[in-house]
Amino acid sequence: MAQQKTESKPKADAQALPPKANFSEWFTQICSPSGAGLADVRYGIGGLMVHLPPTMRITRKLYEYFETEVENRGHEPVLFPTMIKEANLVVEKEHAGFTPEVFWVESAGSKPLEERLALRPTGETQIYPMFSLWLNSYNQLPFRIYQSRHTVFRNEMSTRPFLRGREFLFFETHNCYEDHESVMAEIAADMATMNRVIWGKLSIPHLFLQRPQWDKFKGAENTYVADCIMPDGKRNQISSTHDLGQRFSKAYDIKVLNANKENEFVHQSCFGPGIWRIMAALIGIHGDDQGLILPFELAPVQLVVVPIFKTANKEKVLGHAQILADRLKQAGYRVTLDERDKSPGFKYNDWEMRGVPVRIEFGERDLEAQSVMLKVRNQKEKATLSQAELLDRLPQLVAQHDQTLRDNAQAYFADKVNSAETLEDAIRLLDEKGGFVKVPFHGIGFESEAHAKTLQEKTGGAYVCGVKFGEVETESLAGRTCIITGAAAGALVYIARSH
Amino acid sequence: MAQQKTESKPKADAQALPPKANFSEWFTQICSPSGAGLADVRYGIGGLMVHLPPTMRITRKLYEYFETEVENRGHEPVLFPTMIKEANLVVEKEHAGFTPEVFWVESAGSKPLEERLALRPTGETQIYPMFSLWLNSYNQLPFRIYQSRHTVFRNEMSTRPFLRGREFLFFETHNCYEDHESVMAEIAADMATMNRVIWGKLSIPHLFLQRPQWDKFKGAENTYVADCIMPDGKRNQISSTHDLGQRFSKAYDIKVLNANKENEFVHQSCFGPGIWRIMAALIGIHGDDQGLILPFELAPVQLVVVPIFKTANKEKVLGHAQILADRLKQAGYRVTLDERDKSPGFKYNDWEMRGVPVRIEFGERDLEAQSVMLKVRNQKEKATLSQAELLDRLPQLVAQHDQTLRDNAQAYFADKVNSAETLEDAIRLLDEKGGFVKVPFHGIGFESEAHAKTLQEKTGGAYVCGVKFGEVETESLAGRTCIITGAAAGALVYIARSH
Repeated sequence: MAQQKTESKPKADAQALPPKANFSEWFTQICSPSGAGLADVRYGIGGLMVHLPPTMRITRKLYEYFETEVENRGHEPVLFPTMIKEANLVVEKEHAGFTPEVFWVESAGSKPLEERLALRPTGETQIYPMFSLWLNSYNQLPFRIYQSRHTVFRNEMSTRPFLRGREFLFFETHNCYEDHESVMAEIAADMATMNRVIWGKLSIPHLFLQRPQWDKFKGAENTYVADCIMPDGKRNQISSTHDLGQRFSKAYDIKVLNANKENEFVHQSCFGPGIWRIMAALIGIHGDDQGLILPFELAPVQLVVVPIFKTANKEKVLGHAQILADRLKQAGYRVTLDERDKSPGFKYNDWEMRGVPVRIEFGERDLEAQSVMLKVRNQKEKATLSQAELLDRLPQLVAQHDQTLRDNAQAYFADKVNSAETLEDAIRLLDEKGGFVKVPFHGIGFESEAHAKTLQEKTGGAYVCGVKFGEVETESLAGRTCIITGAAAGALVYIARSH
Repeated sequence: MAQQKTESKPKADAQALPPKANFSEWFTQICSPSGAGLADVRYGIGGLMVHLPPTMRITRKLYEYFETEVENRGHEPVLFPTMIKEANLVVEKEHAGFTPEVFWVESAGSKPLEERLALRPTGETQIYPMFSLWLNSYNQLPFRIYQSRHTVFRNEMSTRPFLRGREFLFFETHNCYEDHESVMAEIAADMATMNRVIWGKLSIPHLFLQRPQWDKFKGAENTYVADCIMPDGKRNQISSTHDLGQRFSKAYDIKVLNANKENEFVHQSCFGPGIWRIMAALIGIHGDDQGLILPFELAPVQLVVVPIFKTANKEKVLGHAQILADRLKQAGYRVTLDERDKSPGFKYNDWEMRGVPVRIEFGERDLEAQSVMLKVRNQKEKATLSQAELLDRLPQLVAQHDQTLRDNAQAYFADKVNSAETLEDAIRLLDEKGGFVKVPFHGIGFESEAHAKTLQEKTGGAYVCGVKFGEVETESLAGRTCIITGAAAGALVYIARSH
């Protein structure tokens, strides 16, 4: 009910949602205060936006999922400052080259700073100097920390909620090990985490890929990602794990005494599920022409009770609706009773837009019949239920909602992952279906970079996203040829246009 | 167990804790990595520090307490950007005068920004321009939001963990109402929240005061605070609620149509419990010469199992200790099994330093006797318990721990709140006992400011902290005289030296 308050203003100028087929406009509108009220881009500075209540409630759960996962694996929470010394950033410059993008703090009050400070883009340059102070023995390994941080800075002027901006929601683990095998084991664990959270909890279908050498994080030996596909057919990278090898440990002098009392540089990895990007996937993949559709567990409001009344019977209907809402709250659901003086139709549309999984309509007739009318967000039919059986039936209806959401997402993704043996077919599939096209290709080492560039030119922007990781491709490459060079293919790669 | 990993390095150079009587050094050492591992100030930039795992776990709970409280009262979570436009800040300048303190972002990459941006100190200047977009009808009132943010910026060069720094942990509500009565009701609710959390959950004794006019937040009509007393006798302000009246709504043009369709500026308040300052109070008030003492619910590790073994029986003892630890975990406790190759004595000191409420010692003899040796952090005696009765007895031992913590805090505070009728007595009490001295004083309006300055000079720095709020002073002022002017007293004020 508190919900309504923040949300009532935006609805005053509610606009119809464009059809989802018109994805870009649909996405802009659904995110806005006059849509599902997720973000307000009218903050007045390019690249910055206000995160509104439903976003805060959804992302709080996303953070919880990831925090629980990584804590179960031994990661400890820390928090580093927002600002870093220029000197630290320059050490990394050779590895990651962030300096062209960062914001610089150059004065405080009316005085210039002695050394300018950068608003740090990701954690490496500020965390690893501390690692070199903290670590001294192999007994401390594996050493695993994480940060849940609300913002990180890049110099991007455009604001596209949850896809592009200067500040976004961030999560990162940073880890040190004795050897490279442990790095690879951690990457497998990150993949399992993504699978449990992203598919298990959020029903977002995705691929776990190893990026080609030319498209990895510059400071890394290798980059492993989870990529999903947005309804405009473009790839959305929702996580990355970097195998940092010993590159940063050598740059920042992070070494430990091993069992033989010899100094050794540690091996490192870092993992970052993209909280913003996952929000974009949730909105884009599950939503429909009416608005958001959210997994029940994640929905800020799970059940809405819409009382149907006239002036004459308002008090009586509202009184009983309140009793009903209280019963549902006591059963542990997040419930809103919509008491606003708006038409039932307005309210139905409003809550469908916001992705409330179950709507309960309740009027004078229901009061007499001891029943309710019930509508599940992604089911076509309404159902009349007796109030007595409501609580018993709800879990089944909820399961039906979540299963439909999952089935739809799976069917959607199946349609977005295709295969081609020729450049011509690949282009046709990219244009007709979008998404991934699996093709035989030269390879993913640096020697194949030029061919990837050719591919990008010939397809109007398709990237080589990488090869499947953690799951062996059963198809043989024998006799198959690279769609660019025509020579024997070195890898089966997934190509896609990108956000 | 994961716990140990991050914490093992610091302990390698563990230093003895100075006696708490030497408060300043005790506090510095207990916060450091070689103490209880709460903060690392070796980050390399004055005023910035790294928040270490125990701090993150404790403050996560503090945030939860406050978030639950304010959400129950109808506040919705939002998140605003870290940077604000200079133009917005200047509007506030007349009210709050923050500009002399803020950090300025003046370039991005290699290019200067067209308009420099400030790292915002508190939320008013960035939130209220959006309020003017969001609000248009009295139906939307009361309108209540909050932010849990990890950092906020001031230009303070010194780093005193949890007391002074450039970035700290922040929580703020911002609220709009139709009238001033609603502001005062909200302030009463904030006071009740502080009481439930700060006394109810954390056992930190405090006073809720109305600040004198000359010491209020400059943009406010009135400022109401919770003040506690640190062991060095100085006041520590742990929350503030500002009655903003219509000052900001007029500056930022936040108005609504009232029931008569007339435009009216809203009335506003904001509330900020200081997460850092509360951490400082928890550490300082409850801790002892051995280290931290924490309320059981808040302790990152609630129970530690210390196995006592020699090489010959290590495997057997550890195996049984693991079973014991698992049983306690299954019962819902946060448990660490300390398997390190360190002496039991080292481990006892280590976990006492970290404030683990219950230690369970377990060796070969216990294995045979099916018993454990048990030590509650703030009780003098150890007890032998049979393993069978351990789970049944724990709640009682925990209650005893928390009750002792609370009794000690209450006795401590009773000693720190005193009364005096003369300046001479007040100075003696400030010097001997520290803390608050309640004195008859001229008043708390601007006309008394000069007398407060005199008081400060004569007492070597005691502030007029204000008058009690929400609880009527039963003492009569009749015949009592201001300790500075000697004229009839206008108020009973609490004075104290300050952090």
